Amino acid sequence: MTHENYMNEAVKAALQGMENNEGGPFGCIVVKDGEIIGRGNNRVTSTNDPTAHAEVIAIRDACKNLNSFQLDGCVIYTSCEPCPMCLGAIYWARPDKVFYGSNQQDAANIGFDDAFIYKEILLPYEKRSILFEQIGRKIALEPFLKWTAKENKITY
Amino acid sequence: MTHENYMNEAVKAALQGMENNEGGPFGCIVVKDGEIIGRGNNRVTSTNDPTAHAEVIAIRDACKNLNSFQLDGCVIYTSCEPCPMCLGAIYWARPDKVFYGSNQQDAANIGFDDAFIYKEILLPYEKRSILFEQIGRKIALEPFLKWTAKENKITY
Repeated sequence: MTHENYMNEAVKAALQGMENNEGGPFGCIVVKDGEIIGRGNNRVTSTNDPTAHAEVIAIRDACKNLNSFQLDGCVIYTSCEPCPMCLGAIYWARPDKVFYGSNQQDAANIGFDDAFIYKEILLPYEKRSILFEQIGRKIALEPFLKWTAKENKITY
Repeated sequence: MTHENYMNEAVKAALQGMENNEGGPFGCIVVKDGEIIGRGNNRVTSTNDPTAHAEVIAIRDACKNLNSFQLDGCVIYTSCEPCPMCLGAIYWARPDKVFYGSNQQDAANIGFDDAFIYKEILLPYEKRSILFEQIGRKIALEPFLKWTAKENKITY
């Protein structure tokens, strides 16, 4: 399988999910040692889950199959450049590499907010379209103090 | 209930999840019309799911309860400033407002990558710690062309 073959598998997942009315036109696969170990396509509208993007679903699927919360040695092929949520998910999963097909401007051109959210991330909170306000930092630090002191913790 | 009361509920979720060894020290609730309609705490390590952050779980829970993929009229209280993945999830869910307790530097201080990922997002792909490469844009645009032409689609 070439990189283009794997990209085609991600695109096929996108097309199939869209045709089944599961969600938007996005697909993703996770590959390890040449084998496809995770698949996903957008299912936001059919599952009422705004986090059900192709990459999130493929990462969760691959991690379930690997019995691990890390994707060491894995490569992700996604039909479109990841949105900020999926980019974050990729960083937490820590694969070796990501191949993407179309880009965030292509997604914006058909009405998806990816590029908008990338712009919002750069803004200070007071200038963003969703208001963010810090409160209760003192009580919110308690879990962090307990985490630091905790002995039997699993870090990630 | 005051904003501080709700924040305390998010902190309680963080403490409880951590004590049950479900994952890291993070909690989140979603409130609509004064009622808590979604709850979450970090479950990354116990479920082998790197996307199982408190905010993602709380958003999914609230959306399930509302039977909607949008959180119109909702307020999110999260014990720590959202990481980029959770920030993206929040933008896709579109609540009215977010209250956060501790901040990304507090999270970095106890070993979590939030601040690191925020810095990586600003870098061009060739300078990031996870490699990103664009391939097959032409085949990857096919789902977008079909989406544009699709008549019975649900946008989000």
